[in-house]
Amino acid sequence: MPLLVTGSVGIDTVRTPFGVSENCLGGSAIYFSMAASFFSSVRLVAVVGPDCPFDLSRTFAGKDVDLQGVEVRAGSRTFRWAGSYHGPMGEAITDKVELNVLAEHPPQVPAGYKDSRYVFLANTAPALQQKLLEQIDKPSFVAADTMNCWIRDHLEDLKRLLQRIDALVLNDGEARQLTSEANLTKAAKQILQMGPAIVIIKKGEHGSMMCDKDGGHFHLPGFPTGEVKDPTGAGDSFAGALMGYLAEQDRTDLEALKTAIAYGTVTASFTVEDFSTQRLASLTRADIDERLEALRKLTQF
Amino acid sequence: MPLLVTGSVGIDTVRTPFGVSENCLGGSAIYFSMAASFFSSVRLVAVVGPDCPFDLSRTFAGKDVDLQGVEVRAGSRTFRWAGSYHGPMGEAITDKVELNVLAEHPPQVPAGYKDSRYVFLANTAPALQQKLLEQIDKPSFVAADTMNCWIRDHLEDLKRLLQRIDALVLNDGEARQLTSEANLTKAAKQILQMGPAIVIIKKGEHGSMMCDKDGGHFHLPGFPTGEVKDPTGAGDSFAGALMGYLAEQDRTDLEALKTAIAYGTVTASFTVEDFSTQRLASLTRADIDERLEALRKLTQF
Repeated sequence: MPLLVTGSVGIDTVRTPFGVSENCLGGSAIYFSMAASFFSSVRLVAVVGPDCPFDLSRTFAGKDVDLQGVEVRAGSRTFRWAGSYHGPMGEAITDKVELNVLAEHPPQVPAGYKDSRYVFLANTAPALQQKLLEQIDKPSFVAADTMNCWIRDHLEDLKRLLQRIDALVLNDGEARQLTSEANLTKAAKQILQMGPAIVIIKKGEHGSMMCDKDGGHFHLPGFPTGEVKDPTGAGDSFAGALMGYLAEQDRTDLEALKTAIAYGTVTASFTVEDFSTQRLASLTRADIDERLEALRKLTQF
Repeated sequence: MPLLVTGSVGIDTVRTPFGVSENCLGGSAIYFSMAASFFSSVRLVAVVGPDCPFDLSRTFAGKDVDLQGVEVRAGSRTFRWAGSYHGPMGEAITDKVELNVLAEHPPQVPAGYKDSRYVFLANTAPALQQKLLEQIDKPSFVAADTMNCWIRDHLEDLKRLLQRIDALVLNDGEARQLTSEANLTKAAKQILQMGPAIVIIKKGEHGSMMCDKDGGHFHLPGFPTGEVKDPTGAGDSFAGALMGYLAEQDRTDLEALKTAIAYGTVTASFTVEDFSTQRLASLTRADIDERLEALRKLTQF
């Protein structure tokens, strides 16, 4: 089943204890698409400026990612982000951000994409996420990501969006912020009451948890990798593999979701092993499947 | 197989967002013994002062815990701890501590306990842990806990102890402190190089991880409980159930360790549901087994 993603394409500068990667390819839609493409065909909807130095057709060469939905907007500039990670690298510190094209109107969804069944709305203003969603005819499964600034400054928009999507994917700090509830199990239940049938909470190196409206639960630790060079894109590649697997299987029941989260976990564990999309670019589905089996062994008792 | 534990018996005052429990029963050896007794007979070695207001024979009535090793030391006073938890209650803040009897010489291990095969040295000065260990004839499996102050102020003693034990159980912050390594997978490997064949890192609500010298790994999330009233004793009851299960099975291979960690996880998840040992006191092995199966369902894919 074709999977549509809307999100950012960015020019990143990332500093970690392992080095600096200047003006490298980044953005939620990039990490998402690369991860999802191991499982499903991907339709990428995003906007860049004419200053974008990356040849995306080369980036995605050999991968099943349709770039028809990438608009190069004349007179605008590409999103730029500079961030750094310290100590256990649990959280990025934003050193500088230029929203540029992201602060403008959202891209147009190409007519040929309107039949997309699986849709992921990567993190952006919830009103824009809703506008993008309205361009899809009859999606069967819609998931969205969000972040602290939208919860703080656009809560009403976000609550409206939550009534239109099937799954919310967010991190633990955001779940606590959205619900004013410290206990994540209780926070997840509160989020379900806001609309989505499924909530997936990402906990960085501590893995993730999922709760659904039917009382289904799933908890998985992170895949332990001794090589964490750059956590950028971990969450987006987690979501990409997760949605890619669901689209591949065309199933969103509890068992499919569990396996999808496990695929998200291992794919994200590759992403962080190198800067930017370098590790993802050299990855194969066989590598991912092998690590999935390793994760199974690591966690089963 | 009989399991011996040495640790503290304390008079605790605990404040959490859910209330205050004043002058209640606490201490590592209490939580450990209560948890371990669901699996194995326990020999408790500890010292209190004549001011100890608790009737331990009543506390452990109906449980297989031998109290012969509890010394009531004339002229001394019982260990007292006052602590509080805030927000997500991840870490206790010590408001007041009176070491009292814990600052004196360690208890004598009764002659009848010297044949103990499984031994747990709960958190205290590593030199004292070693003195207690030397009183056991031929233990087959020795595990120890430690904490930040010993790592900071008694590192050489701790390193000596690490060469005499089979397993170290500590929390994530302590593992990072002991190794100056932020990545927990790398930290675990470094700890293995210091002596023990097994290291178990507790990550609070995020569960635990285990690594052994043969390359065995195990990662398990915490059991999600919506009812966290008082986290005191979670780590000690985790260790108690873990060691109790190993002693019951008289096996310490990787498969046994995995199940032991799962039992530790679910037992600790009961402990935090009420103040002091109240939840543990009303618990049955059937409750624990039922939650173990729930944990299996929650984590398997």
